[in-house]
Amino acid sequence: MGNGGLSIMDVNELKNILKKFNTVEIGNYPTPLQRIKNFEENNNLNNIYIKRDDLSENPGGNKTRHLKYLLGDAINNNYEIFIISGPIQSNFCTQAAMICKKINFPCILVHNAEEPTEYIGNNLLNHLMEAEQIFVGEISFQETEEKVVELGERLKSQGKNPYIFHTDHSKAIASLGYIDCVIEIVEQCEKENKHIEDIFVPVGNGIFAAGVLYGNALLGQPFNIQLVSVEFNKEGVHNRIKKNVELIEELTNIKIEYSLDEILNIYDDYMGEGWGCPTEESIKVIKELAETEGIFLEKVYTSKGFYGMKDLLKRNIVRSKGACYIHSGGFPSLFTQY
Amino acid sequence: MGNGGLSIMDVNELKNILKKFNTVEIGNYPTPLQRIKNFEENNNLNNIYIKRDDLSENPGGNKTRHLKYLLGDAINNNYEIFIISGPIQSNFCTQAAMICKKINFPCILVHNAEEPTEYIGNNLLNHLMEAEQIFVGEISFQETEEKVVELGERLKSQGKNPYIFHTDHSKAIASLGYIDCVIEIVEQCEKENKHIEDIFVPVGNGIFAAGVLYGNALLGQPFNIQLVSVEFNKEGVHNRIKKNVELIEELTNIKIEYSLDEILNIYDDYMGEGWGCPTEESIKVIKELAETEGIFLEKVYTSKGFYGMKDLLKRNIVRSKGACYIHSGGFPSLFTQY
Repeated sequence: MGNGGLSIMDVNELKNILKKFNTVEIGNYPTPLQRIKNFEENNNLNNIYIKRDDLSENPGGNKTRHLKYLLGDAINNNYEIFIISGPIQSNFCTQAAMICKKINFPCILVHNAEEPTEYIGNNLLNHLMEAEQIFVGEISFQETEEKVVELGERLKSQGKNPYIFHTDHSKAIASLGYIDCVIEIVEQCEKENKHIEDIFVPVGNGIFAAGVLYGNALLGQPFNIQLVSVEFNKEGVHNRIKKNVELIEELTNIKIEYSLDEILNIYDDYMGEGWGCPTEESIKVIKELAETEGIFLEKVYTSKGFYGMKDLLKRNIVRSKGACYIHSGGFPSLFTQY
Repeated sequence: MGNGGLSIMDVNELKNILKKFNTVEIGNYPTPLQRIKNFEENNNLNNIYIKRDDLSENPGGNKTRHLKYLLGDAINNNYEIFIISGPIQSNFCTQAAMICKKINFPCILVHNAEEPTEYIGNNLLNHLMEAEQIFVGEISFQETEEKVVELGERLKSQGKNPYIFHTDHSKAIASLGYIDCVIEIVEQCEKENKHIEDIFVPVGNGIFAAGVLYGNALLGQPFNIQLVSVEFNKEGVHNRIKKNVELIEELTNIKIEYSLDEILNIYDDYMGEGWGCPTEESIKVIKELAETEGIFLEKVYTSKGFYGMKDLLKRNIVRSKGACYIHSGGFPSLFTQY
């Protein structure tokens, strides 16, 4: 890829690389990096931080960083409509609709569900925004993606130029947002005199995690990245991350200096029955973090990753002098889970 | 009050005055000041901004600024427990519980309601935090305050030192948080090259509004403050603001240079049937702001104030070359309103 040995760089060099990509001005950054001392004391742990990406917007979450780059890319390349699919309570879908409203860019949400009869959580927000939603019935993720492709073709035949999320290109673009996040954490550690060795990331499709891993590798591994799966087993996560990192490398034309085997730490003991299924421990840790810190996780994603961090630290499987969990949002869906 | 003519000052002098008061380090400040161009175009208006105090925390809102000073005052004066009353969906109560969890300070919420049988909105958050809640049944605000005083006496007789919100002193302390907000807006206008002439504030009990008015007056009226009542008629708002401003003056020992008649602009045409009762227009404007900007108001408070601003500007009752609405939060309660 022609970057012969130049792929470890400092923060400013990395920022310059990111400047080549278009973004839209959304999100409230940097998000706070907060120490959670009451939680530490409750668990006999030390130096635990939460990167409050849930405060990126209202509702906030990791998707704001993804959309910053995705919509920058779409606008810069003269796309005319953003299409994304997901479950009816998808945080990504609602955030996409929200950001598109802000920047006045057409957006279609494709839900693999029947049209709902009541409004709750993200679905209420979609309703209030009059988000354009297509309900394709209860079909699989794969079948939904096929519907999205069909929709894209239909729009193209009508002379519209749709930007479809979930193409390989768009996944790589989305990951770039989490390079920004790694840079923020490096800068906050320095400025706020905080010591972090390990960053814990909840992993589903791996777009978020791949961005963190890639950014961290380009900076010469300031942190160890610990991936807690919420959906797939170790091999499934490995394959997704490998693919996503390769996609980012193609996009930036900069390969990371490390083999994935050197930098990948995947834990698949915390995912329970998979996507959308909470575990006994994840439900308990929602209450623990609320009771000790007034910070809210939800059942599908953030609580499983957070419990993974807690358990791995308490059992000394990860020995860390400073650990940080990236809070990826999902607040509206919490109100549908109790 | 011995400040002979020195009560108009610049931002740095005002910051020095605020430094005399203790605060706790909470909230994500400054909150963004965002222009809402799509909403402007929809209404043939120009230069409309929202001060995103709803992004102060998760959940965010105006109470975060109040609690910053209230809990600073409580801790600094060796109080041991914070007591606050409000309805079951009170944003103030939930934010108080949340901030107290963060700083590990005991807190009791007193609700004039029966104990609920299901968890929704703020009440779910209170439940997850295991907030200490007392349900005194469906009694009036006045009777609830009496219960709070009784509780305070009982705690004192047990050797505890409770900090009761809603004493005159605590109201003045709470208002200080909105002096900070006025300073932020002044600084953001300068730094971000934004032009604001009028700040619109929704008014209930007047603690929030009095802080804005007072801070603005000390800075020599950089803005006109426009108060949109959500609960009381003009006279009721006037009396509350007058009392609250006097309380702040006693606290800081600095009187403002203006008579209230010179600086008070109160509108009571937008409150409908009063507290907790939405109007036809407030319900519509929730959708309008969500559809145009992806920003969420709620029915009790923020939508009535926001609709007031829209109507006053559109009808040229307030002629403004730049208007800013302070978004005071309330997001969790939205999920109980549909």
